[in-house]
Amino acid sequence: MGRNQPSEKPTPYPRSNCAVACTLDILGDKWTLLVVRDLLLGKTKFNEFLESSESIPTNLLADRLKRLQEQGLVTKELYQKHPPRSAYQLTEKGRALGPLMMELVRWGKTHLKGTRVAKKLRP
Amino acid sequence: MGRNQPSEKPTPYPRSNCAVACTLDILGDKWTLLVVRDLLLGKTKFNEFLESSESIPTNLLADRLKRLQEQGLVTKELYQKHPPRSAYQLTEKGRALGPLMMELVRWGKTHLKGTRVAKKLRP
Repeated sequence: MGRNQPSEKPTPYPRSNCAVACTLDILGDKWTLLVVRDLLLGKTKFNEFLESSESIPTNLLADRLKRLQEQGLVTKELYQKHPPRSAYQLTEKGRALGPLMMELVRWGKTHLKGTRVAKKLRP
Repeated sequence: MGRNQPSEKPTPYPRSNCAVACTLDILGDKWTLLVVRDLLLGKTKFNEFLESSESIPTNLLADRLKRLQEQGLVTKELYQKHPPRSAYQLTEKGRALGPLMMELVRWGKTHLKGTRVAKKLRP
């Protein structure tokens, strides 16, 4: 078939156009929302994310920050040239994950015994 | 070192005791919350979950239902002996994910163009 056949067009959504599925295509893994948590807590620098108690591996952190930028949830700004250092911040779309984060916190705190919540994230 | 050395004890939490991290240890993947979505929508049978538009692979569905049971979010009840057929339902702990699901829906619907939401899940 020719390259322009409609049947060869990639579907706009990887699995379905369900809002839940499409959100999970971006956020559904064990690390992305931890990076978002840290951004909501005010962390901006690569090393600050690495310091969190879950010890995210460097390559996973770089990958998640890149994907969050590609999805328009995070901006990256060079604040030092030599050596190059960047600061990451949530966009409006990223900050809009605040209520979702609060629900994660609320469910975890209520149903998973012994878990703690950072002061800034307490509902 | 002896087997009873404190340093060999497994930590009670895989990564940290943060409520967000512990919640993601259970729910942080691309499929688990889609199964929870279907349960919230009233689906109870293995084949009903398979019919959802994301076409979850059979082995992943079986694994996620098993893990949700192990975590006390889902109950499984045999409703037919020959051949064996089971019905799955959310426990109270599982139903308590309703508000989190609504936030996933809300964020997706607002920020991911063209996504749709099942009527029953509309905030």
